[in-house]
Amino acid sequence: MSAARGPYAKTSAKRKQILDAALAAYAEAGSRKVSVRDIASRVGMTDAGVLHHFGNREALLAAVLEAREAAARDAFGDARLDPEAGLRIVAANASTPGLVKLFVDVAAAAAEPEHPAHDWFTERYATIRSSLAEWVTVDAARPEGRKPTADRPAPSRVDADWVARILLAATDGLQLQWLLEPGIDMAADIAALRDVLVAGLVARQGK
Amino acid sequence: MSAARGPYAKTSAKRKQILDAALAAYAEAGSRKVSVRDIASRVGMTDAGVLHHFGNREALLAAVLEAREAAARDAFGDARLDPEAGLRIVAANASTPGLVKLFVDVAAAAAEPEHPAHDWFTERYATIRSSLAEWVTVDAARPEGRKPTADRPAPSRVDADWVARILLAATDGLQLQWLLEPGIDMAADIAALRDVLVAGLVARQGK
Repeated sequence: MSAARGPYAKTSAKRKQILDAALAAYAEAGSRKVSVRDIASRVGMTDAGVLHHFGNREALLAAVLEAREAAARDAFGDARLDPEAGLRIVAANASTPGLVKLFVDVAAAAAEPEHPAHDWFTERYATIRSSLAEWVTVDAARPEGRKPTADRPAPSRVDADWVARILLAATDGLQLQWLLEPGIDMAADIAALRDVLVAGLVARQGK
Repeated sequence: MSAARGPYAKTSAKRKQILDAALAAYAEAGSRKVSVRDIASRVGMTDAGVLHHFGNREALLAAVLEAREAAARDAFGDARLDPEAGLRIVAANASTPGLVKLFVDVAAAAAEPEHPAHDWFTERYATIRSSLAEWVTVDAARPEGRKPTADRPAPSRVDADWVARILLAATDGLQLQWLLEPGIDMAADIAALRDVLVAGLVARQGK
């Protein structure tokens, strides 16, 4: 098939240009707010011109967040499928508070069923929890490569689901503290939590 | 001293009336958005009249959140000083998603230094972390009422601070998952985390 041409290709290219500009604006923003105007001025458009490509401000920010996760996936691996990739992304986040701020803003707003990122977040959380629970089941069942045994069976799915919820919750919630106190080492805190939770599961399974 | 009279007393009474109406609106909202108009109509005022008492929408929402924490304190005890009170509040939150939504929205927005709730959140997090760390130090050092011993010294402050950050982070972050999946039992998840973290500290101290 040939590449898309004509109006659709142009629109798609313009959307990508806007999203790249928005990602750069948030990455450089630190704790300052990013306005639609900041994004528009980077691509030589009006606010209305930018919003036209997405529908409204909420949909634009949802698209920026999706683009950000896609970029992180390219750079660090898929956090939805690989907890180590998740830790690498948490570590990298510490250099871009503006993008962390975007995440917590959109994550909060997306709780509303009519929000443009509502379905994306619902799916994202379910996928990450499921892959974390899978990883926990394997890892906690086999510390240092050991297989489950009668003394040390694989953790029940209920426990693994709980570990997944907690790891995800702590990762999200720690961002709020870190935005107010940037001395917190998010990646070290979450890696330590992962180790304690897995050790706790193993200890409980051994009983 | 006599009670305040005159214009100031009237303004203060009107503010309280607006905050009570806003708390009721959020408590009843479920996953629906609450607008300034919803609040204004409950007290028979215009949007502009309501905002006049607070300055702007952000300051109004910050005041509603402070009023909500004061009400929770009256009903359940001070979560900043008593982790058991914190767990009772987490459990009660499950019946008012609108107020949880308000919390996550304002907490995200308050990361901006110029936000009206910025200082309040910074102080709130520091106070809660400090009291949680204090509680952890006492509790983890004395499981079942035992005093620290040479074999089981009190946890170091560094570990206790980490436990405090993680408990607070997981409590905040779990709200985002719960708003999308209300079947999650937030209070049970956080109580289990508290137990595992304290057990982990005790085990580490015993080494």
